[in-house]
Amino acid sequence: MSQEKEKRTEIGEIGEFGLIDRISKSFGHKNPETLVGIGDDAAVIESGAKVKLVTTDMLVEGVHFDLSYIPLQHLGYKSVAVNVSDIAAMNGKPKQITVSLGLSNRFSVEAVESFYEGVKFACEDYAVDLIGGDTTSSPTGLIISVTAIGEASKEQVSYRKNAEENDIICVTGDLGGALMGLTVLEREKEVFKTNPEMQPDISAYEYIVKRQLKPSARMDVIFELEEAGVVPTSMIDVSDGLASELFHIAKQSEVGITIYEDKLPIDEVTYNTAVEFKMDPVTCVLNGGEDYELLFTISQTDFEKIKNLPDVSAIGYIDKKENGHKLVTKGGNTVPLQAQGWKHF
Amino acid sequence: MSQEKEKRTEIGEIGEFGLIDRISKSFGHKNPETLVGIGDDAAVIESGAKVKLVTTDMLVEGVHFDLSYIPLQHLGYKSVAVNVSDIAAMNGKPKQITVSLGLSNRFSVEAVESFYEGVKFACEDYAVDLIGGDTTSSPTGLIISVTAIGEASKEQVSYRKNAEENDIICVTGDLGGALMGLTVLEREKEVFKTNPEMQPDISAYEYIVKRQLKPSARMDVIFELEEAGVVPTSMIDVSDGLASELFHIAKQSEVGITIYEDKLPIDEVTYNTAVEFKMDPVTCVLNGGEDYELLFTISQTDFEKIKNLPDVSAIGYIDKKENGHKLVTKGGNTVPLQAQGWKHF
Repeated sequence: MSQEKEKRTEIGEIGEFGLIDRISKSFGHKNPETLVGIGDDAAVIESGAKVKLVTTDMLVEGVHFDLSYIPLQHLGYKSVAVNVSDIAAMNGKPKQITVSLGLSNRFSVEAVESFYEGVKFACEDYAVDLIGGDTTSSPTGLIISVTAIGEASKEQVSYRKNAEENDIICVTGDLGGALMGLTVLEREKEVFKTNPEMQPDISAYEYIVKRQLKPSARMDVIFELEEAGVVPTSMIDVSDGLASELFHIAKQSEVGITIYEDKLPIDEVTYNTAVEFKMDPVTCVLNGGEDYELLFTISQTDFEKIKNLPDVSAIGYIDKKENGHKLVTKGGNTVPLQAQGWKHF
Repeated sequence: MSQEKEKRTEIGEIGEFGLIDRISKSFGHKNPETLVGIGDDAAVIESGAKVKLVTTDMLVEGVHFDLSYIPLQHLGYKSVAVNVSDIAAMNGKPKQITVSLGLSNRFSVEAVESFYEGVKFACEDYAVDLIGGDTTSSPTGLIISVTAIGEASKEQVSYRKNAEENDIICVTGDLGGALMGLTVLEREKEVFKTNPEMQPDISAYEYIVKRQLKPSARMDVIFELEEAGVVPTSMIDVSDGLASELFHIAKQSEVGITIYEDKLPIDEVTYNTAVEFKMDPVTCVLNGGEDYELLFTISQTDFEKIKNLPDVSAIGYIDKKENGHKLVTKGGNTVPLQAQGWKHF
């Protein structure tokens, strides 16, 4: 009565991306409306003269969040924001969202309402309509599954695969903050466990803690790009770390990448906290996850139109594939770029 | 650092529907494309000349399924089918699907592949494209979240709210089978636990076990209705039990309902198994969940066009609201109809 197979491969051996590759290979498309399926930030479906964009994320207690430091309201906000970020990464506008919850009996009606207050704030910030979901019980902990639907005109969509040689690589905001925020929260949790009398003072870390607990999707930049009349040649959101996302663009666009250490945007608080924790700030920027900034490439002509945007940094350029992936250090050395990414297994 | 509220209401006190009501009230819609949100089998979104239909379901191990008797392949199939059933219940055609999994380390790559084989069979049966998902780890057990997107012309959509007085109430297939299949599986599991040497013989129950483990979405009937040129005035799929679904239609359409006991479709195996387990077969038909048949109402003129469909039963009619909800028994007595539904909390 149980499932038994002779061969057993652990998921960790091939990783999340390996697993997705393996599964998606055997699936074809039957509907001509399905323009793009698995493999980008969102799927693309024909919808009259426009396209609908569809993305989904699952957040599991104990894996993606720890309720001992994230308030339910922030978690509700974040659950929406991370999906909106995927729609932004396609250069689209979010329109609708479904939110499903699996709840253990630890959660009261009031707790669920707190969560949905956060969902509501996010729906207001991003002009998204909550259109459905499913609510069920769960044996342990909280499970959140969100699907977001966005819209774009066909010509507006930015994929991962169309970066071209000599394009400028840009990134919004600053990076590594969410990782350092998490690091601080984990330390405070340990302190609190040892001595519950001790009230944590995290005021010095406010910026990075907020980056972790209440990230924003960069819809503001999507609107700025639209106003400037610029469509990025490729785009992705930085959820797993800058290096990992650069590799996705490089792989799908079949190009090489060069970025400059001294151009990487890092906030002072992130930098100082990294130093405090004896971590390399550049590694935090390259491999820290959950910043939900946008990484995109644009043609050199278009760069003129956006170079004065206050929250966009040019960090490098797209190279020929055979030139590989490189980081030019502050000292002027060229070293291979390495991606570590965020492991969920 | 934890969430504490003074008042604590258990979710069980207000139930799943109470919780959804409470939350959805505070959410409005900002986008004119959002035609219908929470409250029907699927949301309805404008899409050029047509509409997109969106529905989502979460299935949690230990709550919705027990891997000691459902093979992963069947579970994959069922996860898709139950969502396709919601699209069918809007009189739409399923087009795309996203599948997200939370997996504990009990699950190997091969196990995930078995699950997706079932997903693939369902995608083929219903002509649906797998367009995305999320794969992550879970502290315990398997979590499945599926979102399906369908399509319909605006005039084709059947809501729950438009049933009218004198409409005929119809239901597809037969009911109560999935519940009795589950009952048999639960008994065999107990037998197996007591004596693992004993191989369960469920061949006599094959039909109802299949109803539980591998339900079908009734897309065949949707195509037949289309061919007959009939749009149901209201429709819902029978996932929580016939009585509960009748109450949804009655409430949203503001009508009364009369159904006839002798018209209720029940399979012989379901009937005999109910008797064997000392359960009332009519109660199984009225309150058994997970049959995934379609319950719909049509005008009397349209009934002529479909009355010869082999797998559709007329079970009653829509009455004035003030006449309430009634069951006419085989003995000719009229008794109030009671809904019990499926409790997930």
